[in-house]
Amino acid sequence: MISRRGTLFVVSAPSGAGKTTLCREIRLRLPDLAYSVSVTTRPPRPGEIDGVDFRFVGEPEFRAMLGAGELAEWATVHGNLYGTRARALEDALAAGRDVLLDIDTQGAAQLRARYPDAVLIFIVAPSVKELEQRLRERRSDANVEIERRLVRAREEIALWRRYDYLIVNRDVKEAMEQLESIIMAERCRVARLDLTLPDLEVHN
Amino acid sequence: MISRRGTLFVVSAPSGAGKTTLCREIRLRLPDLAYSVSVTTRPPRPGEIDGVDFRFVGEPEFRAMLGAGELAEWATVHGNLYGTRARALEDALAAGRDVLLDIDTQGAAQLRARYPDAVLIFIVAPSVKELEQRLRERRSDANVEIERRLVRAREEIALWRRYDYLIVNRDVKEAMEQLESIIMAERCRVARLDLTLPDLEVHN
Repeated sequence: MISRRGTLFVVSAPSGAGKTTLCREIRLRLPDLAYSVSVTTRPPRPGEIDGVDFRFVGEPEFRAMLGAGELAEWATVHGNLYGTRARALEDALAAGRDVLLDIDTQGAAQLRARYPDAVLIFIVAPSVKELEQRLRERRSDANVEIERRLVRAREEIALWRRYDYLIVNRDVKEAMEQLESIIMAERCRVARLDLTLPDLEVHN
Repeated sequence: MISRRGTLFVVSAPSGAGKTTLCREIRLRLPDLAYSVSVTTRPPRPGEIDGVDFRFVGEPEFRAMLGAGELAEWATVHGNLYGTRARALEDALAAGRDVLLDIDTQGAAQLRARYPDAVLIFIVAPSVKELEQRLRERRSDANVEIERRLVRAREEIALWRRYDYLIVNRDVKEAMEQLESIIMAERCRVARLDLTLPDLEVHN
């Protein structure tokens, strides 16, 4: 049997690139993928469920987790704190489960440093014009918030070379196929199988 | 626009791993993939078409191509000569076309040396027992030929670590999806886009 440690897939994207939809869809298509729910001090948006979309906490609770070394990465985004609890992540990887994390560029850089063999995937909208349109269609954010997101999106886009893969989200179906392909292909990578296999035991 | 040089995909497999079927199928699924027809001195098997499955030549003609430096790789397999013409391959890559080559392990090693960014994919049957059964079912080969193929298959299997990806062909449909995923994923690799892009121009 081929056995291996789980692979950590980290997905980052500027606001409006369609990351949330893609990450939700991939969970349905690849149910064996473990998905880490981030901790955040940001207030829930309409329809978001605590423990499913995020674990919503107050800032004191977040700071306590940080102080206790419980977070594998953390970041401040638009004045809110976001983080990933290390324990659940490491338990899943050790058990051979692949994990998908939906993390901003600051957190992705921390995860790359901590897990050098993580797979970093960057999703972008096909143009800034398209990005702005998507943010305005969302309607949940005020104008000043949209402007702030656009400024940050431009800063984040400049970081694309730090990633392993780039998905240009022109069309959700195509982007979805690319995301699924990246995960399937990485599962076939000899370098990952090499980590645990003394020799090719599929032949006996 | 994102533009890039074509990627060379090299598929190798011991006899009976199902490589021929997979390569035929992937040409139908991804018609934009250029496929190089190998030159060989091996006699055609029933149903094989000259110029489609192989270009069948005599040994003097093969030696002339080799002497003129026209081959990107060549190898002796079971006493027959096989080779890939360099010109067509390089024209396709320069034009941004991805190329799929179906090549033995000797040829794959030569191509890796000549094109370090080539993607090497190794396909294996799930076990040697299964491999032997598939070779016997083929019926086109004599017993002595089957034995010779099995010996060589064992030698080739030991080389799997030289490849980038390993596909264990338990089921043709699953193996096909893995092969297609590897090609799609490599097309999203930042390292390949990086070769030609001064900056991310999808955003303007």
